[in-house]
Amino acid sequence: MDSLIKKIIEKKNPTVAGLDPKIDYVPEFIKAKYFKEYGETLKGAAYAILEFNKGLIDALCDIVPAVKPQSAYYEMYGVYGEEVLLETINYAKEKGMYVILDGKRNDIGATSEAYATAYLGETKLSDTVKTPAFGADSLTVNGYLGTDGIAPFVSTFDGDKTIFVLVKTSNKSSGELQDLELKDGKKIYEKMAELVDMWGKDSIGEYGYSRVGAVVGATYPEQLKEIRKSNPNTFFLVPGYGAQGGGADDIKYAFDDKGLGAIINSSRGIMCAYKKGNYDEADYAKAARDEAIRMRDEISFIK
Amino acid sequence: MDSLIKKIIEKKNPTVAGLDPKIDYVPEFIKAKYFKEYGETLKGAAYAILEFNKGLIDALCDIVPAVKPQSAYYEMYGVYGEEVLLETINYAKEKGMYVILDGKRNDIGATSEAYATAYLGETKLSDTVKTPAFGADSLTVNGYLGTDGIAPFVSTFDGDKTIFVLVKTSNKSSGELQDLELKDGKKIYEKMAELVDMWGKDSIGEYGYSRVGAVVGATYPEQLKEIRKSNPNTFFLVPGYGAQGGGADDIKYAFDDKGLGAIINSSRGIMCAYKKGNYDEADYAKAARDEAIRMRDEISFIK
Repeated sequence: MDSLIKKIIEKKNPTVAGLDPKIDYVPEFIKAKYFKEYGETLKGAAYAILEFNKGLIDALCDIVPAVKPQSAYYEMYGVYGEEVLLETINYAKEKGMYVILDGKRNDIGATSEAYATAYLGETKLSDTVKTPAFGADSLTVNGYLGTDGIAPFVSTFDGDKTIFVLVKTSNKSSGELQDLELKDGKKIYEKMAELVDMWGKDSIGEYGYSRVGAVVGATYPEQLKEIRKSNPNTFFLVPGYGAQGGGADDIKYAFDDKGLGAIINSSRGIMCAYKKGNYDEADYAKAARDEAIRMRDEISFIK
Repeated sequence: MDSLIKKIIEKKNPTVAGLDPKIDYVPEFIKAKYFKEYGETLKGAAYAILEFNKGLIDALCDIVPAVKPQSAYYEMYGVYGEEVLLETINYAKEKGMYVILDGKRNDIGATSEAYATAYLGETKLSDTVKTPAFGADSLTVNGYLGTDGIAPFVSTFDGDKTIFVLVKTSNKSSGELQDLELKDGKKIYEKMAELVDMWGKDSIGEYGYSRVGAVVGATYPEQLKEIRKSNPNTFFLVPGYGAQGGGADDIKYAFDDKGLGAIINSSRGIMCAYKKGNYDEADYAKAARDEAIRMRDEISFIK
């Protein structure tokens, strides 16, 4: 987790900008340009999204350490959407940002290995040739299948690739399963937090955090506080700030006493900032930057 | 689930052919052709896989009712892999097969809606234009996030789109979480099976099965038997037959007394049949067909 933490410290900003670009979020003038060129097609929509994303990345890259493309919103635009996902990942990395792909992938061992290869590793084409397919820095992962579904992600770690395992998600019905109490008194999410600790224990870096992080929602501050205590070596990815209802008072529990230990996601809040304030849509990137600065100043507890 | 069940009855075969096309599974003569044309690249590998898949589909489509592309093995080949996934889905549908995309997707409500749109629905491009992105018939889904992560898949149901929710997976460490006992004496996978029943209850079709199926591994026959009893309206997708160790004696519990209620997956067993028997690699499609017939005769209990 070191290279992400270094970027956070450098910018004194534990924010990740979520890139969940529904076509409705894209300013009209960008949509019009690409729909004119390619028609109202998946290609037109995808290319409009790419311009939007690049504008956001340009506006954010010197103040925000990371982006989190949400895979679903690229898959929705088919093969062109995937092309735009790849271009977005590459562009953000060129601009020095850490890229967390939010894909919540999960499967049995051999197939998890394929996912790890697709997003964090390099695909073997022959005995001598390997090439990255998407080349992100980090991937979100669902641990329902247990250790053999997680191990391949851990074993492909080289450089500073990381994963974030879903522990306590930010949605309303997350408790339906995650909060159920086990026979031994623990809740399911607490058990998942234990597994996350175990999966990460051999990869603790210079700041005391392992390469196996946890997703814990801002909408459940009590659980954030509790898991911060039980998992001192687990770095958190925290969704649910802003549009979903989590505030600065909620997410403060995610941090350790140096103000590290977590990165807080904002997607719509940043991407659609231009729809809220007194902005012309041509200034969507400035609006995003203004909101990112406001958010940084609100949530940075880094000492 | 009706259209899948109709195809199963028509062919008297409850088999789904898994298409998990690692480049190592593709016969040398196909690889050589595409690597010659495109180099040892993701494009060359992906296009080789497409030819392999089409050969398999041609050889299987009159005897096997469904295919299950495993998304990871396409994502691994990047944007070209996604193109080949789309082409494979389209080709299998043209040949009359039911297409279950094995993607184990999961997220909070708004994002699950994007996944549902990507794989089962149509992407909205403007007020008047919608277009399918991948257009599969069914998708596997992980239920760790609870009802609001599942609801969008259920609400996009039109025609006969279906989902299969992971209940008890076929891998060795599936029990680490799924078998834990809750305070009320139920195991986590039993609780998941209950949720699956609830999620499906408004979509029960003419054969008595809902559109929300369950993934239950052939490697856990006791659990198969038990969930068959507790979930009479839940159709099963059963991985783990063959290469992973499940046999005909194990999977028989997945079926109801008419021999319906489940579809059994074989991936490597069918795709790599040519590597096992006395086949020239040019006959990979015939080998796959022979194995599919052997499997059908072994597992069909349809009355």
